[in-house]
This record gives sequence, C-alpha cells and structure tokens, in this order.
Amino acid sequence: MKNYILLDENAVYYECGFSCDNVIFLRLGNESIFITDPRYTVEAKEYAKNCQVIESSNFIEDTKKILKKAKIKKISFDPNDFKLSFYQNLTKNLKIEFVAKENFSKLKRIIKTDEEIELLKKAAKIGRNGFKELALYIRKNGFRQSENFLHFKAIEKMSAMGKNDLSFDPIVAINKNAAKPHALPTNKKLKLNDLILVDAGVKYKRYCSDRTCTSNTNFENFSFKREQKFKNKKHQKIYDIVLKAQLNAIEKAKVGMKASEIDKLTRDVIEKSGYGKYFVHSTGHGVGLDIHEFPNINSKSDVIIENNMVFTIEPGIYLPNEFGVRIEDTVVMKNGKAIIL
Amino acid sequence: MKNYILLDENAVYYECGFSCDNVIFLRLGNESIFITDPRYTVEAKEYAKNCQVIESSNFIEDTKKILKKAKIKKISFDPNDFKLSFYQNLTKNLKIEFVAKENFSKLKRIIKTDEEIELLKKAAKIGRNGFKELALYIRKNGFRQSENFLHFKAIEKMSAMGKNDLSFDPIVAINKNAAKPHALPTNKKLKLNDLILVDAGVKYKRYCSDRTCTSNTNFENFSFKREQKFKNKKHQKIYDIVLKAQLNAIEKAKVGMKASEIDKLTRDVIEKSGYGKYFVHSTGHGVGLDIHEFPNINSKSDVIIENNMVFTIEPGIYLPNEFGVRIEDTVVMKNGKAIIL
Repeated sequence: MKNYILLDENAVYYECGFSCDNVIFLRLGNESIFITDPRYTVEAKEYAKNCQVIESSNFIEDTKKILKKAKIKKISFDPNDFKLSFYQNLTKNLKIEFVAKENFSKLKRIIKTDEEIELLKKAAKIGRNGFKELALYIRKNGFRQSENFLHFKAIEKMSAMGKNDLSFDPIVAINKNAAKPHALPTNKKLKLNDLILVDAGVKYKRYCSDRTCTSNTNFENFSFKREQKFKNKKHQKIYDIVLKAQLNAIEKAKVGMKASEIDKLTRDVIEKSGYGKYFVHSTGHGVGLDIHEFPNINSKSDVIIENNMVFTIEPGIYLPNEFGVRIEDTVVMKNGKAIIL
Repeated sequence: MKNYILLDENAVYYECGFSCDNVIFLRLGNESIFITDPRYTVEAKEYAKNCQVIESSNFIEDTKKILKKAKIKKISFDPNDFKLSFYQNLTKNLKIEFVAKENFSKLKRIIKTDEEIELLKKAAKIGRNGFKELALYIRKNGFRQSENFLHFKAIEKMSAMGKNDLSFDPIVAINKNAAKPHALPTNKKLKLNDLILVDAGVKYKRYCSDRTCTSNTNFENFSFKREQKFKNKKHQKIYDIVLKAQLNAIEKAKVGMKASEIDKLTRDVIEKSGYGKYFVHSTGHGVGLDIHEFPNINSKSDVIIENNMVFTIEPGIYLPNEFGVRIEDTVVMKNGKAIIL
C-alpha cells in the first residue's frame, strides 16, 4: 500500500511511535504527515518519528489541500474507522479514489515484534500483580462487599491507584451475574462460597494485558489461582470442564494450525461434556495495542497461526440464572507453541 | 420525522427508557422496534417501553428484512452515528432512501422536561458531594501526592467507591499541566500553594453532571469553593478575571438571547482584561444524557436560549507553560434566567 490514511489512535501510534485522540495520519509514498490540533503539536513534533507535523483547526479542509497537492490517484482507508459524515465531507469534490481496506492496520500488527512481546509480557506481569492485590483485599475485607464496590477495588488494584492505565473496564460478577459474559456490576454482595469471576487487564506503554479468573470465595485463603476448590459441586464440575478445555488448547496449540483448530481444542472438550450450547463466544482474540486485535480464535477463522502471534485462550460456560465460568490467559506463540505471557 | 433509525445508546434510551451497548432502534410510523443480542433481550422486553424487541445475531440482515417488509420509501438517520462500513452494508440492495439528519436526536433533547431537570439536579448534587470529599482528602493527605494518584482519588470520591458512574474521565491538573484544557495526569506532585484544576462529573439515572474548580493548594483549609485565595499573585489575577467572566454570564444570561450572546458575556470580560487569546475554547455546551449536548454556547451559535435548556458556563484562561484556570458550572434556564444546578 503506497498511500493510506489513518484515524485510529493506536494505528497511528504503530506507524510513528506517537499518537493522540485527535489526529489524521497520511502516508503518501515515502512521506508521513501527522495532522493534529494545537493541544498536541508540541509533543507530536518531539515524538512522532519521521513525520511532518501539521497543526490544523480544520482537519478536513487541510487534509484535502494536502491530498490535492500530492497528486495521487488512490488512497487506502479502513471503512470501520470512518464515520459516514467524515467520509462524505472528505471525499466531496476530491478526484481521488478511496479504496476501502477493512482492518488493514490490525492485519499489519497481527505478528508482534520481539520488542512488542516484551511490552506485552510486562503488561501481563503488572496485571497479574493487580489480581494478587485484589485477591488479598477480598481475603481480608471482601465479605459482604457489593459487586459495585469490588469493581471499584478491581480498578484500584489493577491501576495500582492510578499508576497504570487499564486495558478495559474490569468485569466483576458474582454467581448469577457471572452467567452474563459482559456483566455490569450490581449491588449484589459477596458471601462465603460464592463464585466470583473477574476479567481485567492493564496497559504498559500502551500494550494491553487481558486475563479472567473464576474463584470460590473462601475468605481464609482466597486466590485467583488456577487450582480452585469450590464448595458447590456444580461450580466445581463446570470449572473443571472449562479448565480442562483451556489447558487442552494451551498445550496443543501449534504454529501452522488454523485459528479454527485452536478454537476446536477448547470447544470439543466442552461439547463432549454436554455443555457445548453454553459456550456462547469464540475461544479468543489477538491482543496488542488494542485489547481486541487479530488473530480471532473462532470456529470460522482460516488464519494460519504463526510464531509471535499473541492472543487469548478463554473458554467459558454460562448457565443462565445459575452462574458462569470463564478462564482466560493471554499466550504468545514461540518456537511453535503457546506460552502464557 | 415518520421513520428513523438510531444506533446511539443514549438516543435509544431517550425514546424508550431502556438501552444497551448493542442495539438498532427503528421507528416506523407508530411502531418501535428494538433489535439487540441475546445478552440484553430479557431486560429489553421488561424495560423498553412500547417496543417490539427482536433478538438478533445478524443485525444488518435482520434490519434489512424489517425495512423491506415495512414498505417505506424514506428513513432518517444521523450520519455521525454511522460507520461507513455499516452504512454501506445496510443500504446495499435496499430500495429505501436514507435521509441524513445530523444530530437529530440531540436536537430533540435540547429542551429538558422538568423530570429530566430533577435528575440533572440530583446528579449535580452527587457531583458536588464528590468534590467535597476530594477536597477533604487533599486537605488531609494530598501533600506530595501525584496527579496520577489524585486522578485516581477523584474517581474514588466522585464514584463514591463504585456507587456512581462517572460522566467522563476526570481531569486533575497541577500548575503547568492545567494550561492544557484536556490535560492527562502525570507524576507531578502536589505542593503547598500549587494551583490545581479538577474537572469531573457523575451520572444519576444516566443523566450527567459537569463541574470544574480551580483552587489554591492550602492544606489547612483546602476547598473547591468559588472563594479562593492564591498565594501566587498571577494565579489570583487570572482567577479573578475568569470568575468575573463566569459570574457575568450566569447573572446576565436570559431566555431569548442567542447562544453567541452568552458566549460574549464571558469572552468580553476576558478580552477586556487582555487575555482574550488565551481563552481557547467556547463558553459551554448542553448537558443531559450525553455529557456534550445542545445548545453549544459559542461565538457562532444563533440558537435562541429557552427555558429548560441545561448547559455549562465554563470560561478559562490558559497560559502555556505557566498555568490555566477554568471555572465551570452547569446551569438550567428557569423563569427566564440561569440557575446553577
């Protein structure tokens, strides 16, 4: 792709090592142009590598002028990043063909560099530490605290009181609420031997971590470790199936497989156990600058898994009005196999 | 407008009293249709008023089917809410004219009902309480705490540890950083007699509050009150100008004025003082379900101000590399004049 235009903050960061929430990035042949407003031009000039930085108070008009001057015939863009109104204003009276290439920045980023993997490892480590701190809090003070409050505590512990950015708004769900894959916190209070699901992640230098743990609430030695002893037998049964599915995929995922084959590694275990219809989402998703990147690990994806891909493995079983279990880790493919970050 | 389609969560909530983050809302003549995925259908059926709820795993195809069956010729939509890819897929092979009406939902919501004003008042009250709690914290424990940490504390106090949703990510900025209208928190630590700017708000039943205070850091009696005694004389001088500008607008804003005339009420004071070029944004914006609604209070808006409009009055002066001052309140127009919520 010779010429392209980017609007997405992370896509721009990937190109030049700097970004902000109001930018148009143009790649025209060998030239890169970073158009932003006065709030960001000083930092853009300092940090955006190999870019001409242009300060603008009318992005669309200034971009049109640059494109006209560049005398190009075609430019690629991602139609998922463009609002219709922006697209219509930008292309009006411009004799340049806009070529829609869905997800082209994310596709570029599907294989991580070793440097990116180090950042993702660091993010995973900081994330694990947040989970540990949250577990200690729940052990000591979690009894009768509401999901709302524990959700706030998850933010507190994951961010280490504001030091780290979060990859996404954490999910904290008890029993029935955990049966919703994207539960919002409620006033429901945590009791002894409840099942609690926590899905959370942090960013390190913009790179995301992502992990989900499901635990039995035992206030004496509460933890987010894999080894969980549930008082409730059905909790234990479902947990053991999900864990078996997850470990099966982590163990057997190999470079050269299709993404759908990795999906099958978790799905087969859950289907054989009779709970297939309660595993209502895909096995995983890529993780990088965005919390959802490529490869998608689902039953339809033909993408061939390669070394240095980073993605989640997160099977789950959701029993409506009862409870749900999900176990998620982020893995990197190295030397042909999956290693938990 | 007989037929329209909505994607925005708050726009949908306004129509039927329920919403979620994955919905297509269709209004076809007298009929309302709420299309969502299995995660939300149970609640939608319970809470979405006068709607037919349709569970879908393929929103675009199901919407097309409904539109075809309805035999309509035209449907209105907001091009700011539509991604280009979504628009292209939805309109493909559909013989219906899509009529772009920018911001039509927000325009509908420009005048609040008395019931909405009660909710906005309640949000403002909860927000003020959050500011009070944050002030107490800073008084006792703020010394040498970083912006990052105080930003986290702002989230803690505004949300009352997870009880309230926030209207937006708070801004906490000390001295130089306050010269950026949308500063991100840093490691900079709070010291005696620093200037600190806090911009924050909460939601009550989805309705937003919005307020900005600029204060002198005196650990003995720190507060976010209007009356501020700055140790630094330039801080005091600029603060007094901004306060005068804000009070001038609150006092003189009247129903029947153009929005631009209210903008002029703050801008004139700042311009006369010689700092006009450092007031780099508009005077205010509407507040409701969205944190940014209509009317816009800027120098170009001809909108006539009416009773039951709710908007912010928030002049500011930003001296690059020195400091910035902004004072913001949300007001409602009642009996012809502005009352702070």
